[in-house]
Amino acid sequence: MTLATDTWHVNGARLNASLDELARIGALPDGSVRRLAFGREDIQARKLVREWMLAADMTARIDAAGNLIGRYAGREQLPALATGSHLDTVERGGRFDGAYGVLAGLELVRSLHERRHRLRHPIEVIVFTDEENTIIGSKAMAGQALQDADLYKVKDGTDIQTCLRRIGGDWSLIDTARRDRSSIGAFIELHVEQGSVLEVAHCDIGVVEGVVCQRRFEVTIEGQANHAGTTPMPLRRDALVAAARVVLAVEDLARTLPGQQVATVGALDVFPNATNIVPGRVALSVDIRDLSEQHVEFLVACLQERLDAIAADTHTHISKHVRLRLSPTLASPDIQQAIARAADRLGFKSCYLPSRAGHDAQEIGRFTDMGMIFVPSAAGISHSGNEYTSPEQCIQGANVLLHALLQLDERD
Amino acid sequence: MTLATDTWHVNGARLNASLDELARIGALPDGSVRRLAFGREDIQARKLVREWMLAADMTARIDAAGNLIGRYAGREQLPALATGSHLDTVERGGRFDGAYGVLAGLELVRSLHERRHRLRHPIEVIVFTDEENTIIGSKAMAGQALQDADLYKVKDGTDIQTCLRRIGGDWSLIDTARRDRSSIGAFIELHVEQGSVLEVAHCDIGVVEGVVCQRRFEVTIEGQANHAGTTPMPLRRDALVAAARVVLAVEDLARTLPGQQVATVGALDVFPNATNIVPGRVALSVDIRDLSEQHVEFLVACLQERLDAIAADTHTHISKHVRLRLSPTLASPDIQQAIARAADRLGFKSCYLPSRAGHDAQEIGRFTDMGMIFVPSAAGISHSGNEYTSPEQCIQGANVLLHALLQLDERD
Repeated sequence: MTLATDTWHVNGARLNASLDELARIGALPDGSVRRLAFGREDIQARKLVREWMLAADMTARIDAAGNLIGRYAGREQLPALATGSHLDTVERGGRFDGAYGVLAGLELVRSLHERRHRLRHPIEVIVFTDEENTIIGSKAMAGQALQDADLYKVKDGTDIQTCLRRIGGDWSLIDTARRDRSSIGAFIELHVEQGSVLEVAHCDIGVVEGVVCQRRFEVTIEGQANHAGTTPMPLRRDALVAAARVVLAVEDLARTLPGQQVATVGALDVFPNATNIVPGRVALSVDIRDLSEQHVEFLVACLQERLDAIAADTHTHISKHVRLRLSPTLASPDIQQAIARAADRLGFKSCYLPSRAGHDAQEIGRFTDMGMIFVPSAAGISHSGNEYTSPEQCIQGANVLLHALLQLDERD
Repeated sequence: MTLATDTWHVNGARLNASLDELARIGALPDGSVRRLAFGREDIQARKLVREWMLAADMTARIDAAGNLIGRYAGREQLPALATGSHLDTVERGGRFDGAYGVLAGLELVRSLHERRHRLRHPIEVIVFTDEENTIIGSKAMAGQALQDADLYKVKDGTDIQTCLRRIGGDWSLIDTARRDRSSIGAFIELHVEQGSVLEVAHCDIGVVEGVVCQRRFEVTIEGQANHAGTTPMPLRRDALVAAARVVLAVEDLARTLPGQQVATVGALDVFPNATNIVPGRVALSVDIRDLSEQHVEFLVACLQERLDAIAADTHTHISKHVRLRLSPTLASPDIQQAIARAADRLGFKSCYLPSRAGHDAQEIGRFTDMGMIFVPSAAGISHSGNEYTSPEQCIQGANVLLHALLQLDERD
C-alpha cells in the first residue's frame, strides 16, 4: 500500500536555518554554546521556540516542571504522539545536543501545518527542563521527581523552587506534571549520537535499543593537610595520593572486567590545592554506565571493595555518596521497527546501538513506548564547540522522525 | 669569664603581647591568619612593625625589593648583625610562621634600648618581602632576583612592579637591594620548626644545619576531553588517569629511593572538571626537597623517565616546567656553635636538624654567615590556623637569639 504521505519531506533548509538562529543564543567566541538551564539564554531560547510553536498552529503550555509543551491537534481523540528533547547545554556545549531534537520536531509540525494536514493523533513537541543536570523535566513527567527539593543541586547554588519559577514552573505543583500512557501513547527522541559508532560503521541513522543504566557518586577522601617540606613521607596522610589510586581503580574496573561498561572520574578537586601543602582533602566524581543494571551493581560493589582497601593503605577516610541513579530503559520494539523501516524507505543505512549517554527518553520510556533516533556526530565529539553533524545529516534524521511518526499514527 | 650581659633576658610578656597584636591583622574566624604579600593586611602589618621599630630607637627604611629594614646603631663602624623573617602568610596560615622571627628581633632591640645598651655592631631587624611566594625580598638582597619581571607570578595576577610599588619598593632599582658580607656580617633567623622533630625529641631549641635544596615544577598533561558516556575505554586519552599515575610516581620516588627526600603533588587542577566529561587536561605541581642538590637532580631525572613512560602508555602529552629552583644553604658552623652555646647556658636542650622548609635565611646565607634557630611547633602543624608554639617556647627562642647575637658581637 502506498500512502499519499510516503513522499513527504520536511523543509530541510528551514530546519537548518532555525538551528543556526537558535545557536546564536548563548554562542561563545570559541564556537561553543553556553545555555545553562534556568539561565538568561535558556529562557531566551524557550521564548523563541514557543513563538515558533504558536506560528505553526500549536498550542504551547508550560507544566509545573517547567517543560514547554507544544501541541498540534489531531483528528481523533487519541493519546499524543510525542517528540522533543532539551534546549539547555553544558558549560561549553555544542549546537546540536538537545536543540536538534526540539527543532526537528517543530519542523515536522511546520511541514504538516503547511500542508494543512492533521494526523489522527495529536503531536506534542516537548522542551524538557534541565536535561544536562537535574533532569527534573522528564523525571517529573515520569513521576520520578524526588520529594526533597534540597536533593536538586543547581550549580550556582540557586534552589530548584526559584529555578522553576524563572521558567514558569511551580515546585509545589510538581506532581501535576506527571503524564501516563493514556496521555502520551508513544515518544520518539531524535538526537545526535555523541559518539562515533555510526560514523565508524558508515551508518546514516541509529536505531537506539535502549538507554544505559547510570550511577554517579561523589567520593570524598579525608587525609591530613600538612607542610610539604617538613612532613616526612611515612607520617603523611596525603588525600591526593589516595585519590590517585581511586582514579586508577575506577579505570581498571572499566577496562579489565568483562563487559562494555564505561567508568569515569571527570571532576576532582583538591583542598587546599597549594604547591607546598600536602593535600588534606579531595572530592571526586565517579560515573559508571552499562546497559545491564545488574552489571552496574556488580561494578559498584567492586569499587567499594577497592575504596576500602585504599583507605586502609593510605590511612585516609573515604566516603561515597550516590548523586545520580538512572535505571536502563529499553526502547519499544514497535518503535525501533518503525524507525528502521522509515530509514529503509528513505534509502538510509541504519544500525542498532545502545545509548550510553543519558536522555530525556530514558525517563519518558518508564511510562510509555519510547524510541530514539541517532544521527552521526563527527569524530564522536560532544559537549564541545567542535560537536558537528552536517546539514544533510540533520535533514535525514528529521525525515526519519517524520516517517516513523506517520507509521505510529496508523496504530491505535 | 662572666659578662654583665649573661643574665639579660628579653621581655617575654611584651613579645607575646606583640605577637597577639600582630595576629589580629588578617585574623580569620577559624583561627588562621590571611596576610598575603602585598595585600592590605600585609601593608598594615608592615606599618605597625615600622612604628614599633621607630619607638625602639631604630631607623627604618624600605629597600627597592620592599624589604623593611630596621637598624639599631652600634658603637663601632662594623658590618651589621642581622635577624628577621617575614610578615606575609599563606592563604590560611598560622600566627607564628614568619611573624615570630620579626617580633623576637624587635623585642631583642627593645630590651637593649631599655637598658640604653648598644652592641659593638649595628643590629638590623629585617622584614623580608613575600617569603611565601616569590621570595623576592631575600632573593634581591642576595643578588638572586631574576631579570625578567614576568617570571614573578603573583597569585592574583598583579605584576611584580605594581606589587613592589604598593609596599614602597621599586622594581627598576631592584639591583640596589643587594647586600654583601661587608654590610651584613652575620644573619640569624628565628623561626617555628613547622615540623615535629623537636617535639618528638623533646628539644627546646633546634640548631639548624642548613636549608634543603628545593625544586618545584609545573607538570601539564594534555589528553582529549570527551563524553564520559559515549567514549569507549580503549579510545580514551584521559588526562586525569595519566595525572593519577604521575601523583603515584612522585610518591613512589620519595618513598622507595634511599634517602631522606620528600616529594609532593600539592596542587592539581582538572579541565573541564565536569562529572560527565573525560578530562582533557590536568595541571599539577611537583615539589622535591633534599639537603643534597646532587640527590635532587637524580630524583628529577628519575621523575622525567617516569613522565615519559606514562605519556607513552596513556597516549597523552606531558610537559614539565621549572617553577622554583633553590640550592641548599649550609648554616655557618660558627653561628651553629653560638646558638648551641646560648641554648646550653640558658638551660635549654638543643638538637641539630636540617630545615626542610624554605626560609629567607637560605638566600641570605648565599653571601654571608647564616644560622637559624627553631622552636618547636605543636604536632608539627604548619600553614594552618592550628599552628602553635607556647608563649614560654617563644620566649625561650628569643632569649637564645639574644645570647647568640651577643656572642657574635664579640667577634670581629
